[in-house]
Amino acid sequence: MHIDSYFSLSNSSLGESEFVILGIPYDSTQSFIPGSRFLPNAVREASWNLESYSMLFDFDFNDVKICDAGNINVDGTFIEIVERVGEFYEKINAIPIAIGGEHTISYACAKNFDNVCYIAFDAHLDLRDEFDGNKFNHACTVRRICEEIENVILIGVRSGTKEERDFAENNIEVFYSWDVMEKGINWIVDRLECKLVYLSLDVDVFDPAFVHVSTPEPAGLFPMHFLQFLKKFKGKIVGFDVVEGIPDNEKRTQMLVARMIFEFIARSKRF
Amino acid sequence: MHIDSYFSLSNSSLGESEFVILGIPYDSTQSFIPGSRFLPNAVREASWNLESYSMLFDFDFNDVKICDAGNINVDGTFIEIVERVGEFYEKINAIPIAIGGEHTISYACAKNFDNVCYIAFDAHLDLRDEFDGNKFNHACTVRRICEEIENVILIGVRSGTKEERDFAENNIEVFYSWDVMEKGINWIVDRLECKLVYLSLDVDVFDPAFVHVSTPEPAGLFPMHFLQFLKKFKGKIVGFDVVEGIPDNEKRTQMLVARMIFEFIARSKRF
Amino acid sequence: MHIDSYFSLSNSSLGESEFVILGIPYDSTQSFIPGSRFLPNAVREASWNLESYSMLFDFDFNDVKICDAGNINVDGTFIEIVERVGEFYEKINAIPIAIGGEHTISYACAKNFDNVCYIAFDAHLDLRDEFDGNKFNHACTVRRICEEIENVILIGVRSGTKEERDFAENNIEVFYSWDVMEKGINWIVDRLECKLVYLSLDVDVFDPAFVHVSTPEPAGLFPMHFLQFLKKFKGKIVGFDVVEGIPDNEKRTQMLVARMIFEFIARSKRF
Amino acid sequence: MHIDSYFSLSNSSLGESEFVILGIPYDSTQSFIPGSRFLPNAVREASWNLESYSMLFDFDFNDVKICDAGNINVDGTFIEIVERVGEFYEKINAIPIAIGGEHTISYACAKNFDNVCYIAFDAHLDLRDEFDGNKFNHACTVRRICEEIENVILIGVRSGTKEERDFAENNIEVFYSWDVMEKGINWIVDRLECKLVYLSLDVDVFDPAFVHVSTPEPAGLFPMHFLQFLKKFKGKIVGFDVVEGIPDNEKRTQMLVARMIFEFIARSKRF
Repeated sequence: MHIDSYFSLSNSSLGESEFVILGIPYDSTQSFIPGSRFLPNAVREASWNLESYSMLFDFDFNDVKICDAGNINVDGTFIEIVERVGEFYEKINAIPIAIGGEHTISYACAKNFDNVCYIAFDAHLDLRDEFDGNKFNHACTVRRICEEIENVILIGVRSGTKEERDFAENNIEVFYSWDVMEKGINWIVDRLECKLVYLSLDVDVFDPAFVHVSTPEPAGLFPMHFLQFLKKFKGKIVGFDVVEGIPDNEKRTQMLVARMIFEFIARSKRF
Repeated sequence: MHIDSYFSLSNSSLGESEFVILGIPYDSTQSFIPGSRFLPNAVREASWNLESYSMLFDFDFNDVKICDAGNINVDGTFIEIVERVGEFYEKINAIPIAIGGEHTISYACAKNFDNVCYIAFDAHLDLRDEFDGNKFNHACTVRRICEEIENVILIGVRSGTKEERDFAENNIEVFYSWDVMEKGINWIVDRLECKLVYLSLDVDVFDPAFVHVSTPEPAGLFPMHFLQFLKKFKGKIVGFDVVEGIPDNEKRTQMLVARMIFEFIARSKRF
Repeated sequence: MHIDSYFSLSNSSLGESEFVILGIPYDSTQSFIPGSRFLPNAVREASWNLESYSMLFDFDFNDVKICDAGNINVDGTFIEIVERVGEFYEKINAIPIAIGGEHTISYACAKNFDNVCYIAFDAHLDLRDEFDGNKFNHACTVRRICEEIENVILIGVRSGTKEERDFAENNIEVFYSWDVMEKGINWIVDRLECKLVYLSLDVDVFDPAFVHVSTPEPAGLFPMHFLQFLKKFKGKIVGFDVVEGIPDNEKRTQMLVARMIFEFIARSKRF
Repeated sequence: MHIDSYFSLSNSSLGESEFVILGIPYDSTQSFIPGSRFLPNAVREASWNLESYSMLFDFDFNDVKICDAGNINVDGTFIEIVERVGEFYEKINAIPIAIGGEHTISYACAKNFDNVCYIAFDAHLDLRDEFDGNKFNHACTVRRICEEIENVILIGVRSGTKEERDFAENNIEVFYSWDVMEKGINWIVDRLECKLVYLSLDVDVFDPAFVHVSTPEPAGLFPMHFLQFLKKFKGKIVGFDVVEGIPDNEKRTQMLVARMIFEFIARSKRF
């Protein structure tokens, strides 16, 4: 029975799966619109609308083993959540795909990988050292990740403070949204040197026309840009998360997230 | 010019006012549906629909001095917010009316009063000692208030744990929703002995048919019950807050909150 | 073909009909939430959900001739609309049922009847002489009607200014919402002496829990109160309008209006 | 304390400010979807999501003095509103930024400037001489402005009557949306000769995918087009308004308007 599980993609036990889908319904530090806590289940529901075949990658989902592991318990403090995610990631032998929740959960996921580049599609720099007296606020995610991972790359950025920009220029690589829009994804992919990647998709990188998000930023990327990235980039991606979406009544946001996970899996099997 | 303030009720400076309206847009510990952070401004907008005369209390608002002090800064930790509210309440010489935000903000407000009873209309006991590793979670509000105020009374309760109920029976006075529905408000008012009161209205006390709230509980009170309480109860109320409403598209929730504040002021001037 | 017509109730030509349904999608003077202009068509859509039999009045709609005459043109000034409605009402030989639009349209309809009492269910007195420099603002409707009809009765009132209340006490009969709630509809019906009636239902008379309206007022009547009025009141009703509803996503408001028109027709045939 | 003002951009008194933000919540002549009256406050709320730094213009908002003057009183006739806006604009010594409300309010704002070109981004010509018996209907805005300002330029137009187009060809300059989409903003900017400009952004110029508006017109511009205009155009802009947006549930429209005002200010300081 499909009880709340990722449709057509949840066909395996945790032990034998190649990909594991995990919900992390946490959004407690949201500074603007809360509600991304409801995304994982909404994506599962939206996934009922997916076929079992990717046209983009010419891939049939009968040829892959996937487990939907449900949602992780987000009671307690954020540190407790980080520990729970760590324990879970340690015991699996598959590529994990986390559905947030706010961007903070990307830290809990990415820190379990060694020797990776962290590539995030994001409208924001998320490089503050502290926000609302909290080092694990969603506005600090990339800053915390910089303490765990050396090589950090952001794509689609168009908002941040002067201090964040200064920090970014000295510590990470940033591709701004206007450059993506004008020069295209290939121009960026050509400049990426990393081979082993943890990938994070903060859906506010897309124009608010396409998604309902916690902190909308106008003049963003198109969903096609992300699909083109999946198609053109040749590095190995060992972990993935999608964050900051808020389910909407028309099911546009949750459908977009479901589709991006679907194509991520198809892409991973074709490389 | 109409500054975006509580309509027809904001006619005075802070110094000369008899009532001060303050928004506290904080909802970070919400365990279920977040969004009450958007209530204060929605109530202001809804207030454009209020007349300047209360038919229920035969009172004209030209005869009262009210100041809308805007929203308090909720950046930082909850402790910092408590301090800011405390400093604000210290400097005013008027009856404060706070618009939440989650119920937690009631603690920040009520603790500034001495020798009062704390009466809350609430569907929940809110008596947990800790929740999500946080003593200031919205599920702990009344427990924290019990540490500050001796005499605590809850009206309309219909949800809580066994532990909370045990604590309630030994420490506070509770009127359950079924008793309110069956016996009426007068039956309760006749049993109240307190003369000096801090009043809190958690709008989830009402049936979910009437309001959009963070943690809806079926089989609740009617708005008329609260109006009858304002009409029949003869004690002096020195502070008031309304919490846990989430603005809805049809402006029902925000209109209800606006009206309850309106009638609270009219009532206070007629006694 | 059912083209946007009132379902199961539109079975006749204009000439042979006993009841005529007319939409007046006008809401230009709304002081708070506009959108009632979209009500007539939404009510038609909602009416697809009606049966052809009224259980309340034990009446089958095969035994009545009804015409849905569509919406009247509301281009131009309000005076022009009043004239168009007048010309239309003059040429029909049936009981007209108008769907607003704002309450102002009730003036355009009611003024075409002689020797009637005007009974309105309404949360507001609508007795201002002028509003926003306009004598035909929706807040002035009943005042304008008082200039055309001698005997005016309002039921369910709970909002107005001091001046309106003074005017009301000297010129019309008012039954307040608290009295309806406490004493019931029979108590009111027993006090009504009029025999020939034009009836107006401003749906903001109901609690905002039940409808989406332009100017919501908490603590209102229940839909059952209006049905009880239709059942108990024995006078002859020669014209009817329903106004001030705004269609909602869940189709609650439009369904309520459709049902009230349905029962009005059933009732009219049983007396 | 955060008064409900334009976040991070309201840091000054009216007297010392370089920019003044003013809400004009008027939408009474809307011929299709009303609701833009709720835009000014929704934009303020959305502005909580803005940083204090513009990445596009490399500008920090600590270096500018801005006052949010609240909403102007829109009670009474439109002429009275025009007078109130005029009195307000006369007393300020700063660049005014008005948030509508319908496009009509642009007339009330622009007529206070001498020797300017009026440039509007708009899907419609708005050149009717009269509509619904009203010379100040929102469909007449540009016609009225032509009576006050000699040099009028519209960008992004794709809707109007034959009569409006004839009038346009003889009296104003029009850049159609298809030309913007095909040739880009630079092509237009190169053809603009005006140096001193009053700028109006009717957000229906954008594709309905990006905004909720009163009169949606498909096949519109992208938000990036307007940002590119702000970046490339070298004239001096002495006044600005944004009109015709209706707040949406997902806060996309209000966030877009907030951002455009934000970048307008950053741009104005960098030239």
